Parts: sequence; C-alpha cells; structure tokens
Amino acid sequence: MGRWPGRAQERLQAAAIELFAERGYERTTVAEIAERAGLTERTFYNHFADKREVLFPSQDGFIAGLVEAIGAASSDRSPLDVVVDALLETTDWFDRRRETAQQRRRIIDSRAELQERELAKMAAFGAALAGALRGRGSAGPAAELTASAAVSAYQLASADWLADPQRRGLGHHLRSVFGELRAAASTW
Amino acid sequence: MGRWPGRAQERLQAAAIELFAERGYERTTVAEIAERAGLTERTFYNHFADKREVLFPSQDGFIAGLVEAIGAASSDRSPLDVVVDALLETTDWFDRRRETAQQRRRIIDSRAELQERELAKMAAFGAALAGALRGRGSAGPAAELTASAAVSAYQLASADWLADPQRRGLGHHLRSVFGELRAAASTW
Repeated sequence: MGRWPGRAQERLQAAAIELFAERGYERTTVAEIAERAGLTERTFYNHFADKREVLFPSQDGFIAGLVEAIGAASSDRSPLDVVVDALLETTDWFDRRRETAQQRRRIIDSRAELQERELAKMAAFGAALAGALRGRGSAGPAAELTASAAVSAYQLASADWLADPQRRGLGHHLRSVFGELRAAASTW
Repeated sequence: MGRWPGRAQERLQAAAIELFAERGYERTTVAEIAERAGLTERTFYNHFADKREVLFPSQDGFIAGLVEAIGAASSDRSPLDVVVDALLETTDWFDRRRETAQQRRRIIDSRAELQERELAKMAAFGAALAGALRGRGSAGPAAELTASAAVSAYQLASADWLADPQRRGLGHHLRSVFGELRAAASTW
C-alpha cells in the first residue's frame, strides 16, 4: 500500500488499516495507531471520535463535493443522472486507493459493529443526497427515494469494484449497476 | 395501550415500551422489564439478546411471512408488485398496534444506538426480500436494488403512518409511497 501523503487523517487511516490487517482490529489500540502514523493520541482524537471512526474518514469532504456538484448541475438533467454524474467525478480518487479500500472492506466485513457504523454512514450519505436533490426542486418523497436507490446502487458498485479480478475502475462498475437500476425500475 | 395477549415476546415488548416512556430508556433495566411483564430475567434473555433488542421483536415472523407470500405470488406479477402485495397483507397487524408503534418510534428516534440497530434490522429485511426475489427468478442486482427501494419506501410509509393526524391505515400510506416510488423511477 502506498503511503498517502499529507493530511493527518489519511496518515492515521493508513496506519490503522495496516495495524488492523497485521494484528486484528480488536488487538490494536488508538495509541498504537497514532504511533505508527508518527502522531499523538491527542491528534487522533482531534480527527476521530473513536477507533471505529478511523475507518470512515473522508465522508464529509466526499459528501460536500457531491452536494456541490448536484447543486451546480444543469436543471434539465434528471435527478438520477445528476447523482450519477456527481459520483463519477469521485472515481479517480477511489481508484488510486484500491488496495487500501480492499483491506478496509475486509476489516469492516469481519465485525458487526463496523458494519453497523457503515450503515449509519450510508444513511447519512443518503440523507445528504436527498437534501441536495430537494435543493434543486425534487419533492420530498421523490428526493428521498431517488437518494436511497442511488446509495444502494453505489454500495453494490463499490462491492463489485473491489471484487473485480479484472481490476476495472469504479466508474465502470457505477455505470453498470446504475444501468441495472434503470432496467429494474422499468419493471416496477 | 391495550395489553397484547399471549406470547412472552409481546408482553416483554409492551412492558419495555411502558417503562421506557415512564423512566427513559437508559434508566430502565432488563430486570424491571421482566418484572413488569410478570416474567423472569432468564425468560427475557431467552427471547432477546439485550435491552436494545426488545424494541425489535417480531421481525423474524414478519420477514418469514413476507418471504412466503413473495414465493407464492403469481409468476406474471412484477417484482415490486409482489413485494407491495406482501407488505399490504401485514398492515392490519400494525394498524392494531398503532399507539405502541408511535411510542416505540419516539424511543428509537431519541437514541443513536437504537437508530443504528434499526438500520441493521432494515438491512437484514432488505437482504431477506432480495433473497425471496432471487428465489422467483430476479437476477442478483435487480433483486437487491428492488428490495432496497422497497425497504426505503416501506420506511417512509411507516413514518407517514405514525405521523398522520388523520390516522389513516398503513395500507393507505404504503400505496401512496410506492406510487411516489414508481413516479420517481419513471424519471430515472
């Protein structure tokens, strides 16, 4: 795994994922994560509320970027098109971090408490997308239902991306799963 | 709130909701719930893994009924129609427990740990619906995306039902929100 340059949050997450993979999630302490990252425990807690949270770092910036892109989209685009376009703008960032994302996925899949935290993060993600869609004029239920469907499709596409033996990019899998969503919805 | 007759699970849930409403969730113990229900703590733990779980009691039976109804549905019905029909069969049970459901909703909404548990329950509900749809021939992604959309619509309809000052039945709100889902999907 390449070391992520720069920000403390990314260094802490990279250190945490290394240690969780080496020793297991349960046997790794926040102090050890901070030490591996060359930072203090205090710095860790400046960035993350607890050990679980280090696996879910960049959502605020990710969501803010999506909300901004959705708000800036042309008003003649459909709500789902606007969300897909916004998600496709994020894929380079993820494709550059594929190995880390795979290790992170295995750690989350190994523990129910981490899966619960991920569900809460995905719910917050959906609520933010719904707010952005309401902001461009979708009615409340339509905005929430479109946002929820988009989050489900995003999760499936992410899983396909990480499991793909051909290592195709996240954008390929997003296009594929959103195509499946449209095909499924046409039968509803 | 009328006393639910019969099964220990329902008595324990009714007692728990009464106590949570009277004293708060945090200040109520499993021993007190069991005592209020006229049962032992041991019986409580035979039915529920922990205090949180008493708020999520009937999902296994609920899901089993839905899965059975989906499996028995005519093969010429669309996947979403089949799910809606199955959900509509459950509404009488909920409509008879509206007051309890409102108290339960307020308790869950008051605590992040309960909301997280509910998200996990909804994820399990979606996985079960997806399995039932695959069982009647839907391809994997279509089954998962249809099931997720149905769970989102179900959650919105439940919230509308509990907040409805006109006290219309859950079936009314399910039909309304699934209509919104179809209208939204037609723009995707």
